[in-house]
Amino acid sequence: MPTRREFLALTAGATFGPVLLRSASAQTPGTGPEAARRRADLVDRLTALSAFGRPSSGTFDSGVSRVAYSDADLEGRRYVLGLLRERAHLQPRIDPAGNIFARREGAEPSLAPIVFGSHIDSVPNGGNFDGTLGSLAAIGVVEALDARRVRTRHPLEVAVWAHEEGVAYGRGVAGSRIVAGDIRPADLDQVWNGLRRADAIRRIGGDPDRIAEARREKGSIAAYVELHIEQGARLDEAGVPIGVVRTIVAVHRHEVVVTGFANHAGTTPMDRRQDALVAASALTLAVRDIVTREPGTQVGTVGHLEVAPNAPNVIPGEVRLTIELRDVSADTLDRLAQAIRARAAEIAADSKTTIAMRRASQNPPASADAGLQDLVAASAGRLHLASMRLPSMAGHDAQMMAQLGPMAMIFVPSLGGISHSPHERTSWDDCARGADVLVETVLAADRQL
Amino acid sequence: MPTRREFLALTAGATFGPVLLRSASAQTPGTGPEAARRRADLVDRLTALSAFGRPSSGTFDSGVSRVAYSDADLEGRRYVLGLLRERAHLQPRIDPAGNIFARREGAEPSLAPIVFGSHIDSVPNGGNFDGTLGSLAAIGVVEALDARRVRTRHPLEVAVWAHEEGVAYGRGVAGSRIVAGDIRPADLDQVWNGLRRADAIRRIGGDPDRIAEARREKGSIAAYVELHIEQGARLDEAGVPIGVVRTIVAVHRHEVVVTGFANHAGTTPMDRRQDALVAASALTLAVRDIVTREPGTQVGTVGHLEVAPNAPNVIPGEVRLTIELRDVSADTLDRLAQAIRARAAEIAADSKTTIAMRRASQNPPASADAGLQDLVAASAGRLHLASMRLPSMAGHDAQMMAQLGPMAMIFVPSLGGISHSPHERTSWDDCARGADVLVETVLAADRQL
Repeated sequence: MPTRREFLALTAGATFGPVLLRSASAQTPGTGPEAARRRADLVDRLTALSAFGRPSSGTFDSGVSRVAYSDADLEGRRYVLGLLRERAHLQPRIDPAGNIFARREGAEPSLAPIVFGSHIDSVPNGGNFDGTLGSLAAIGVVEALDARRVRTRHPLEVAVWAHEEGVAYGRGVAGSRIVAGDIRPADLDQVWNGLRRADAIRRIGGDPDRIAEARREKGSIAAYVELHIEQGARLDEAGVPIGVVRTIVAVHRHEVVVTGFANHAGTTPMDRRQDALVAASALTLAVRDIVTREPGTQVGTVGHLEVAPNAPNVIPGEVRLTIELRDVSADTLDRLAQAIRARAAEIAADSKTTIAMRRASQNPPASADAGLQDLVAASAGRLHLASMRLPSMAGHDAQMMAQLGPMAMIFVPSLGGISHSPHERTSWDDCARGADVLVETVLAADRQL
Repeated sequence: MPTRREFLALTAGATFGPVLLRSASAQTPGTGPEAARRRADLVDRLTALSAFGRPSSGTFDSGVSRVAYSDADLEGRRYVLGLLRERAHLQPRIDPAGNIFARREGAEPSLAPIVFGSHIDSVPNGGNFDGTLGSLAAIGVVEALDARRVRTRHPLEVAVWAHEEGVAYGRGVAGSRIVAGDIRPADLDQVWNGLRRADAIRRIGGDPDRIAEARREKGSIAAYVELHIEQGARLDEAGVPIGVVRTIVAVHRHEVVVTGFANHAGTTPMDRRQDALVAASALTLAVRDIVTREPGTQVGTVGHLEVAPNAPNVIPGEVRLTIELRDVSADTLDRLAQAIRARAAEIAADSKTTIAMRRASQNPPASADAGLQDLVAASAGRLHLASMRLPSMAGHDAQMMAQLGPMAMIFVPSLGGISHSPHERTSWDDCARGADVLVETVLAADRQL
């Protein structure tokens, strides 16, 4: 992360890499003193926001744990609310789900709003770009239009979604999920991170008793645009600064229970064991083999695994694990799960265990709007920035918004593809480029829709 | 476990199986009203002791959690101390390590004592025979000799060892380990089950400040004899009531750290992952394969495994696991560990992880004394009980005592080989047979040594 000297150089516009230098003509959007100030603000604010949930005696490089509904999340939300009020001169409101919305009126009151934003909650031990970049850049859009004295036709809405990681996690009641209408009364009784969901939502200023009113209707938004770090390595490896998302992948999560028989690890001969961990190990390798044996971008992960009784001198009697499968096609995921299930039955027979596998959650795939994809690519082009189309292998609030109207996502490179880690990095230049493309895309959508 | 009716039938000597019926002549040891009373006492006392550490609202069949130094352990020890005083008419003492010893003087004061006993602590969720049978039967030996008005040549000592499971676990400071002199000052600062070891030892009446005085010298005991359940299935499967232990296996425990790279489970392509759990799974299967690819009774277990960060949507960055290897030959264990280490290096290279493996503890193998083995077999024969020689695949206090003098172990069948489990069972008949063989072996040793 930048030293003070680098920071000053950055705010002076002197360290931008070759991609942006190509755009250094006076009339090009994204250049000039106003744009430089906006970039400096973005760096400043990402740095300021990183303090909420930072490990004690850590630095920006130590990453962040700003888990939804935590004290750190509350502090971060207060900081963002302050920016909306004092810098974007908007009156933010908190909807019953706890999402923050701030509206800037347009010239044509009959038009539905263009919504843009992201989230500021993080995974435990996460990074300082996931969600925060898109949230702070969205506030910057309003400031940019104010500075240029632009009045849009459509109303604009900055959105800072509550508990985005609930989208990614698959079973959490994310704020955007509630807005899309995907909630049941029982969901509010879920306990997550030690808090009953209803209490958690109340804690951030939502109103669980009126949760149904958070829902927005299909067709009620003109467009939803979200800037986000890629969290993968495609842009970084291709050396392309802007990604235009085609599809957000489907995520199917399966919960597996392997039941063996716990017994003495000394006195039970090898051929009489019913070792649940041996079976789970074979299954873990099978997931990788089945997912990789055909071409494609599908992925499969055993990320969570618990052994019982988990003592060095006792043969494992039970293992619980999750299998997470992701692909742009839900059909592919069903086919992979079927193959894994068949292999699990063989493993169970070989190891004298039983293996129960059930699908615990699924996120459907979401396609970005073709017209909006073209607008993003054209906006990058106007800024002389190369772009490429790619799928999002991570879940996003945008996939919920795609249920309500046309959706687009702008990706910027993650260094080395690292995310959900304190090592998560996007260069300040790429952050600024993404923010510039967001401004231009919002303006282009306002003109064309 | 017996109903009241079965219990009465048992105490009347009516339910003994065919093996014992063959011994039903008046002058045979182990028969007659005195022997029947001793058997009834044994059942009674095993049942009484099972109450200390029983799950709330459980029964005898619910097993026991009488972990060393716990309240349940203290209660169990008080019960045993009471039996020693009131039924065996001995004055028990607690040594600085917390072991209970009770001495019955012999006719020849110059002779070293014959020591016999076991332990009453259990693993969490253990069974009601492991250790308790040998402890209560040892008290019964003194009562049997009192009833027969036998004065032995050697002094006799009943031993109830503190924290036997520390022998089995490999790194705990077991009471018998301290008596064998295998303790360093730092061991007393170990925290185990929430208690600093020195405080734990003080809690059960030991004196950590004088711990060195617990040591007994090599040659200071004439013999050590321990009755124990087999914890394996050999006797049960062979239908043989008495096992004569040849060797107690060596146990080598290795601690393994697999280091990969935690990353987003959606955005990281399969071919770019450094998945610590995939590597750990391959290693777990390799342990089984390497241990089973040659004939022999050696066993290998991955019983403990922890994943970090252990979230469904994050590729595992680190896995810690234990590999426990057991065999009668320490050389075999070294050879197996070498093969596992070589395979681990291949797995690490294939999976782009690192695998560090270090030997964390080792228990040496211990041979039972050949002469004492013959005495056990002969004693079983005098009682018309079939016996067979076998290794002990579990660790025991006896392996520590083997460092001080001749050692023998008497095994009785574990139903289905189940142990360290609430399902651990040995028939009351087999318990009584083992206790009878213990009496005869002690008497035979007293005559011959």
